[in-house]
Amino acid sequence: MGRRRFKELERAYGFDEVAIVPGQVTINPDLTSTKMTIGDLAFEIPVLASAMDGAVSPRFATLMHQMGGLGVLNAEGLYTRYEDPYSVLENIVSTPQENVTEYLQQVYSEPIREDLIGQRVQEIRKSGSVCAVSFTPQNTKRMSPLAVEAGADIVVVQSTVTTARHMSRSYRGLIFSELVKSLKVPVVVGNCVSYDVTRELMETGIDGVLVGVGPGAACTTREVVGVGVPQVTATLECAAAREDYFRRSGRYVNVITDGGLRTGGDICKAIVSGADAVMLGTPFAQAEEAPGGGYNWGMANPHPELPRGTRIKVGSKGTLQQILYGPTTVTDGTQNFIGALRVAMGMCGAYTIRDFHKAEMVIAPSIKTEGKFFQIGI
Amino acid sequence: MGRRRFKELERAYGFDEVAIVPGQVTINPDLTSTKMTIGDLAFEIPVLASAMDGAVSPRFATLMHQMGGLGVLNAEGLYTRYEDPYSVLENIVSTPQENVTEYLQQVYSEPIREDLIGQRVQEIRKSGSVCAVSFTPQNTKRMSPLAVEAGADIVVVQSTVTTARHMSRSYRGLIFSELVKSLKVPVVVGNCVSYDVTRELMETGIDGVLVGVGPGAACTTREVVGVGVPQVTATLECAAAREDYFRRSGRYVNVITDGGLRTGGDICKAIVSGADAVMLGTPFAQAEEAPGGGYNWGMANPHPELPRGTRIKVGSKGTLQQILYGPTTVTDGTQNFIGALRVAMGMCGAYTIRDFHKAEMVIAPSIKTEGKFFQIGI
Amino acid sequence: MGRRRFKELERAYGFDEVAIVPGQVTINPDLTSTKMTIGDLAFEIPVLASAMDGAVSPRFATLMHQMGGLGVLNAEGLYTRYEDPYSVLENIVSTPQENVTEYLQQVYSEPIREDLIGQRVQEIRKSGSVCAVSFTPQNTKRMSPLAVEAGADIVVVQSTVTTARHMSRSYRGLIFSELVKSLKVPVVVGNCVSYDVTRELMETGIDGVLVGVGPGAACTTREVVGVGVPQVTATLECAAAREDYFRRSGRYVNVITDGGLRTGGDICKAIVSGADAVMLGTPFAQAEEAPGGGYNWGMANPHPELPRGTRIKVGSKGTLQQILYGPTTVTDGTQNFIGALRVAMGMCGAYTIRDFHKAEMVIAPSIKTEGKFFQIGI
Amino acid sequence: MGRRRFKELERAYGFDEVAIVPGQVTINPDLTSTKMTIGDLAFEIPVLASAMDGAVSPRFATLMHQMGGLGVLNAEGLYTRYEDPYSVLENIVSTPQENVTEYLQQVYSEPIREDLIGQRVQEIRKSGSVCAVSFTPQNTKRMSPLAVEAGADIVVVQSTVTTARHMSRSYRGLIFSELVKSLKVPVVVGNCVSYDVTRELMETGIDGVLVGVGPGAACTTREVVGVGVPQVTATLECAAAREDYFRRSGRYVNVITDGGLRTGGDICKAIVSGADAVMLGTPFAQAEEAPGGGYNWGMANPHPELPRGTRIKVGSKGTLQQILYGPTTVTDGTQNFIGALRVAMGMCGAYTIRDFHKAEMVIAPSIKTEGKFFQIGI
Repeated sequence: MGRRRFKELERAYGFDEVAIVPGQVTINPDLTSTKMTIGDLAFEIPVLASAMDGAVSPRFATLMHQMGGLGVLNAEGLYTRYEDPYSVLENIVSTPQENVTEYLQQVYSEPIREDLIGQRVQEIRKSGSVCAVSFTPQNTKRMSPLAVEAGADIVVVQSTVTTARHMSRSYRGLIFSELVKSLKVPVVVGNCVSYDVTRELMETGIDGVLVGVGPGAACTTREVVGVGVPQVTATLECAAAREDYFRRSGRYVNVITDGGLRTGGDICKAIVSGADAVMLGTPFAQAEEAPGGGYNWGMANPHPELPRGTRIKVGSKGTLQQILYGPTTVTDGTQNFIGALRVAMGMCGAYTIRDFHKAEMVIAPSIKTEGKFFQIGI
Repeated sequence: MGRRRFKELERAYGFDEVAIVPGQVTINPDLTSTKMTIGDLAFEIPVLASAMDGAVSPRFATLMHQMGGLGVLNAEGLYTRYEDPYSVLENIVSTPQENVTEYLQQVYSEPIREDLIGQRVQEIRKSGSVCAVSFTPQNTKRMSPLAVEAGADIVVVQSTVTTARHMSRSYRGLIFSELVKSLKVPVVVGNCVSYDVTRELMETGIDGVLVGVGPGAACTTREVVGVGVPQVTATLECAAAREDYFRRSGRYVNVITDGGLRTGGDICKAIVSGADAVMLGTPFAQAEEAPGGGYNWGMANPHPELPRGTRIKVGSKGTLQQILYGPTTVTDGTQNFIGALRVAMGMCGAYTIRDFHKAEMVIAPSIKTEGKFFQIGI
Repeated sequence: MGRRRFKELERAYGFDEVAIVPGQVTINPDLTSTKMTIGDLAFEIPVLASAMDGAVSPRFATLMHQMGGLGVLNAEGLYTRYEDPYSVLENIVSTPQENVTEYLQQVYSEPIREDLIGQRVQEIRKSGSVCAVSFTPQNTKRMSPLAVEAGADIVVVQSTVTTARHMSRSYRGLIFSELVKSLKVPVVVGNCVSYDVTRELMETGIDGVLVGVGPGAACTTREVVGVGVPQVTATLECAAAREDYFRRSGRYVNVITDGGLRTGGDICKAIVSGADAVMLGTPFAQAEEAPGGGYNWGMANPHPELPRGTRIKVGSKGTLQQILYGPTTVTDGTQNFIGALRVAMGMCGAYTIRDFHKAEMVIAPSIKTEGKFFQIGI
Repeated sequence: MGRRRFKELERAYGFDEVAIVPGQVTINPDLTSTKMTIGDLAFEIPVLASAMDGAVSPRFATLMHQMGGLGVLNAEGLYTRYEDPYSVLENIVSTPQENVTEYLQQVYSEPIREDLIGQRVQEIRKSGSVCAVSFTPQNTKRMSPLAVEAGADIVVVQSTVTTARHMSRSYRGLIFSELVKSLKVPVVVGNCVSYDVTRELMETGIDGVLVGVGPGAACTTREVVGVGVPQVTATLECAAAREDYFRRSGRYVNVITDGGLRTGGDICKAIVSGADAVMLGTPFAQAEEAPGGGYNWGMANPHPELPRGTRIKVGSKGTLQQILYGPTTVTDGTQNFIGALRVAMGMCGAYTIRDFHKAEMVIAPSIKTEGKFFQIGI
């Protein structure tokens, strides 16, 4: 009697649609640990800053290191195309909105200068910071060794959608198992959203998987090409692959939720969904120290034929210190991410990130009300 | 214990409620093929322009052909009622909104001139283009032979809801199997939304089925008469019928999703839902070359007693070239449809449209946020 | 593993959440019949006008009869409390919004004059119209015989929630089986929303059940007391009871969906949900001939202690003729209800109302879009 | 074939997503009883006022007692930090919005004066009222005996999330079984949201459980730390625990839904979900007699590092008498809570609160419409 369908669809969920259930035991926030490791490198907090030119400059990467996290430098962005990227950044900021996609298309058509890759890596290393740089799959084989040679500690290989197998007419697909062997530093790869791809990627020997394709409901990748999976479901799938891979191989590979996170609450939900760490762009572009001067844009935006996203005025919301650790008088979750994480871990009785993986979540869509009757708990 | 119900209801989904999951393999967009065939006719792209007077004139049909697609001419619209339809088009555009439904009711009460049918077909054929013309079931038997005689390559029989069996007091229901035999050109029929009707229609020997009844949530057919099925579910059902019919008969009949598509993402989702092609009206009425001068209206609007829809100012958004192939600086998915299709196919590892049928989708409602925190992927 | 709950909740649906699926056969609208019967009384259309003082006056009841439907007069409203209700109606219209609930509380505290009941019935009967009058359960036993004696053809017993068993300290609960036997005219009772209550009510011998408690999502009964069931689900339940009762007893009792209907599409959906007829208030208060002068209010509004709803400016949208039968230039479904019903029946191949009960529906929430890209079908 | 997930998520519901189904029997509202007991203390109505400084002062607690309910005094708020809290209240009201979180952080950093605890208890007891005072778990062991000694009748131990087991570095977790034994007055504990925690808490011998963590969709605890469960589901779970505990132990412990309730309808839904009573803050802060002068704020707001919520202008909506018992001309459910409760109980045939637990509910999301076509029932 039921209607026949060409295929079955399952429901996927985003951050705004779930909520964490408090645990059976609670602990004081000061008893929690937020430590994470990538390969042999240890970090105080499980937070990465995205390889976006408006968010992470060499100087910002250093600052992230000092705060206990990791800033990833886009090795194919302005910093490696221009000797002086800062004047270009200023121009991006001052270009009127109606011309900015065109202007971005233009400045990103300048070729990458390989000599600048090493130079930027050294700038970061000089300060004593862990240095992570990001490449697209097309350029990874040629360029990533230059970065490692110059001292890069972590290589990130990132495109909108990444799989262990890519077919191309113009270049031979990157073979991750070969890359891992040749580079000898931890390799983080993304983005992906499904069990099978995560599993295959982990089997190549990489050290971390970035999760997230078109996660936001308003993400223009979803609007332009229709592709994307909301982040909670994407993370739940990729984390399932990590668990199965760990059970079989004994090797634990990080799942890093990347994109669509705006608040401390989103970070907590990503981790309860199974993430070992999170990667954020816009929230860091909002730091007073960010190179974008209160603006942000992505690498898909200057695409010459199919631009997605745009330059967004994100504003400057506070110092990186405030964003990560407070104190704050802001009550919307956009500051003191780590304070929020510790409080939530405490409410769930989680001493560590991996304990926090065991917390329960429910589906509880956040319906915006008129904002007049907030519940005010003690 | 459960509540008793008079009948069971299943959930149906529209474009805004689903998203495509990237595949296990990715390929470069330049390796993809977007070819489609109707009968023996081959097209570079699986895109039809709707038989709406504001979208397709004889000249626009020619342009669609040159771009690799197919424009369908409404053989019961202004072009076959008026020797000079262009002055009527101008009047429609200049009539104030409050009088326009009445004015449309008036201009469409002018009778169809059978001599103009052949004349319009010849205008299109003269340019070397494939010519498709559309009739309502009432007029098909009498008028479609005139079009075919004049050189029409494809006949489309279209009404809001079409089945293989229609009961009428005033005319004998159109028998599709007889029509197909007598016309000797491919026949495309619609619109329908369900497995059983698609199956029955395919068994009459037709070459394509148009899918879509009141697809948009805001569609006034849904508001006025309550009838309609969201397009993703409608396409999933009709595609299931095509597969079953193909398995049994060995004959592959096109499923063409018609209506409710606005962006490249919607086109991708229709195809992943099982469509072999898509038919769009408003997006083409927005082309600079469209005859409607930035306005669009449907044949249900001038209905003398139960008008649905209205004349809509859709604006002129770019050339047909830009809408189909870019390049563009627009980032909302309304330009470079084919570029978007190829990118999405690449993300799912699909070389052909039928490969793309195998991609996965999830239910992921698009909740509009304030638009400030787009995820910006690389 | 699953969470334990105190009770299970099932999902209920309203008009905006469903859509009708076209049938396997279509018929021309002029072949459809919209006839309905209540007891031995036959009506051309399955439409009742609610017993609301702003909608149905004796004169409006006559007009409804001439149009083929049935207007129910509120026998406890202004028409039976005031010799000259029309000047009170004028005052209600001219009272400022902030004072109107108080003013309504005042005018409805005037006692019902039993002599006026018979007088109003005779006004309606004099014109040759079928006369239906409505009472609350408290007054039915005493007052309804006066109406029947004066010639009333149908008695409606109506309160927000009605069951076959009511417990009261101040009056002995109305016993419907006794009422039915004593009155000897068809009795319609409501409102209810569930299988069990409908079944019990039908077993008392009544001739119709009104379905609807707090149906609208914005209904203030839902806000004030939390009680209500969306109309599609309520109708599906009550219709299931009617079928079971019919199967066992051989007696077919009407299910009349009352409340929350605004458009032709809503009427169609109510009938596909199993309704034999629909009852509407606001859409008739919007008729130029309505006594409320473009305003409407309910009997729950002047409740002395717990007022619900309010006086609403509904406007005057057209003549009753246009609202029921068109023609119209309005495209939002608020005019030509019967035209819409016939078109929808045709799309589903339904010759009669009971055929239309067999049509399929899907769950298809209507998400309001910006209203720019209506699909425009032929 | 299905997608693999790291964990399963169940759907949770809030007040706006459910509706109560009328019963098979109806009774007159004047036959209903709304009595509740806590320990040996009996109350006419199952309504508590939250321990928020803007809602409950000693004087307001007395007023609540006179109205038949119970006002809980925050024993760690302004009333026990300041000899003259009223001038501080005035300053809070007059501070501009942009400085208020900071100002609240400052005034709440003043230490609690233990002598004032007893003094405030005596103020309440002097009027002959039942006196309930609230402490956080950190201070309960030390401070609650002072309150009981001064005459407090009920002790409430409340924090955002409470469990029977809490781990802390700085203080030894409160042991509820010891507290209950030593205090010898009823102890109410919260907040919690799940079966297991409720069960464990009840087993310690306490007399009531407060239900609610981040219940509102707009609650900033949900936004800031991602933790929370909508109130209907939370209440359904905790009530299931109460039933199981009662079945095994023979002891009936109150479940009190706390937070997120705005209307009479919400109160009814909480009780049908299994609550024995409800606790409200903002609706009482809106009383003319409330100490907050039309403003409200929570104890999570002045948190020194992670403030949540803010001072909200809630306005003064009527006297406490009107809010609880009417009469009213307001039709949005924010006045005459008890009238609404009795009407709803009548519609469900419930003589007592525990009868009302047996009513049915359905999931029926409240979609805001334009507010023009309210259904208006009789």
